[in-house]
Amino acid sequence: MHQTFDAALGINLLHVNQEGADHNRAHFDAWGITCLNLMSSPGSGKTALLERSLPTLRQEFRIAIIEGDMTTELDADRLRQHDVPVIAINTGRSCHLDSKMVAGGIHRLERDYNPVEFDLVLVENVGNLVCPAEFEVGEHAKVALLSVTEGEDKPLKYPVMFQEADCLLITKLDLVPYLDVDVDRIIANVRQMNARATIIPVSAKTGEGIEAWHDWVRSQHSAKSVTGRSQSNGAALAESP
Amino acid sequence: MHQTFDAALGINLLHVNQEGADHNRAHFDAWGITCLNLMSSPGSGKTALLERSLPTLRQEFRIAIIEGDMTTELDADRLRQHDVPVIAINTGRSCHLDSKMVAGGIHRLERDYNPVEFDLVLVENVGNLVCPAEFEVGEHAKVALLSVTEGEDKPLKYPVMFQEADCLLITKLDLVPYLDVDVDRIIANVRQMNARATIIPVSAKTGEGIEAWHDWVRSQHSAKSVTGRSQSNGAALAESP
Repeated sequence: MHQTFDAALGINLLHVNQEGADHNRAHFDAWGITCLNLMSSPGSGKTALLERSLPTLRQEFRIAIIEGDMTTELDADRLRQHDVPVIAINTGRSCHLDSKMVAGGIHRLERDYNPVEFDLVLVENVGNLVCPAEFEVGEHAKVALLSVTEGEDKPLKYPVMFQEADCLLITKLDLVPYLDVDVDRIIANVRQMNARATIIPVSAKTGEGIEAWHDWVRSQHSAKSVTGRSQSNGAALAESP
Repeated sequence: MHQTFDAALGINLLHVNQEGADHNRAHFDAWGITCLNLMSSPGSGKTALLERSLPTLRQEFRIAIIEGDMTTELDADRLRQHDVPVIAINTGRSCHLDSKMVAGGIHRLERDYNPVEFDLVLVENVGNLVCPAEFEVGEHAKVALLSVTEGEDKPLKYPVMFQEADCLLITKLDLVPYLDVDVDRIIANVRQMNARATIIPVSAKTGEGIEAWHDWVRSQHSAKSVTGRSQSNGAALAESP
């Protein structure tokens, strides 16, 4: 976190961001969309996970991706090969997506597609284990990834991300034999920060744990279909996001 | 980067940070200290590199560490086992060290030791591939680490860090056989961003490349001993940092 209070305007930037996130979420709710926000360090395997999951999940869900990167459309181009709409947002010097940027993505979804035709919007955030956790974008749940190569101590050292996560994927499980790392120790450290998150060790390479991750995604959309739609009946959507 | 302009005060926070960094550097210069700022994603191996290097480097240099972490002294405690002073700075919710925090570390160095007795101050920044690159802390050179597990595309996707680096260490070389990664491709991508940085592939585990890294550290302190001391003769040090 850098400066979050603009003294001239007398406003807290995190509060402004939260209002935008709530507005984005009201749109998703009205359209029956479940939005998941994927966050991690650079190179923890967010894009690789989506590449592994899209062939299965797109058989069941109509999916759009909002892909955040400081520069380039490298990740967006990888995901476009899976025949899903990918809206690329370049954040420039910003180290995280915020709700205003994602609102821009929602506008493009409205302009180029019919949003009610979608079930899932998967947001891939900028690779950063700190700041994205503080800027909600309108998601219904937060998914944090931690690769086994990053070390056992990361949940203790970067607490906010692990406190905020609804689902924690421990990625690159296939590399465990080559590392001095204990997955049970990672899980114990996550639990020190967060008693409620679903924790799923996975390998996008071998497929281990991927079905459990898909089940979690399914559970999120089911829960949403029951509660989210009814919640959204009264949502005020007077203005565009 | 988040908000960097405080409209009420009419000041650019990056500019204020830079003034603090210049002040810190003037202190280091006056004491004959070379300061290196180590930056990378979480888990790229900054602490492991220092653990590997300290037994050799502390034979040649009097070293102090400034250790930045959001919370905990886990890394600081690892490095304290190498009989060097380690000043731990917990940044709280901040995703990077800034020059004011490091000035606090310098104060502690002055209070508890005699700064002129040191040759090297090694700053280990918070794990983040974005924000630390924009906040100078008073270093004479920036060292960026990128582990081979993070993927070949990171220099293109996180340009500021790679543009700013004076030395780029490609870490965890021992894991290459187990990954779909081409170190030459990483190097080519770094070169697209930065024509001048020294690039050294290393493994803290096997020791590969570590002597080349030590040579680079030696070259920085030698260059500093020739030019830095004379530059610092005119440095104004009226106030403490």
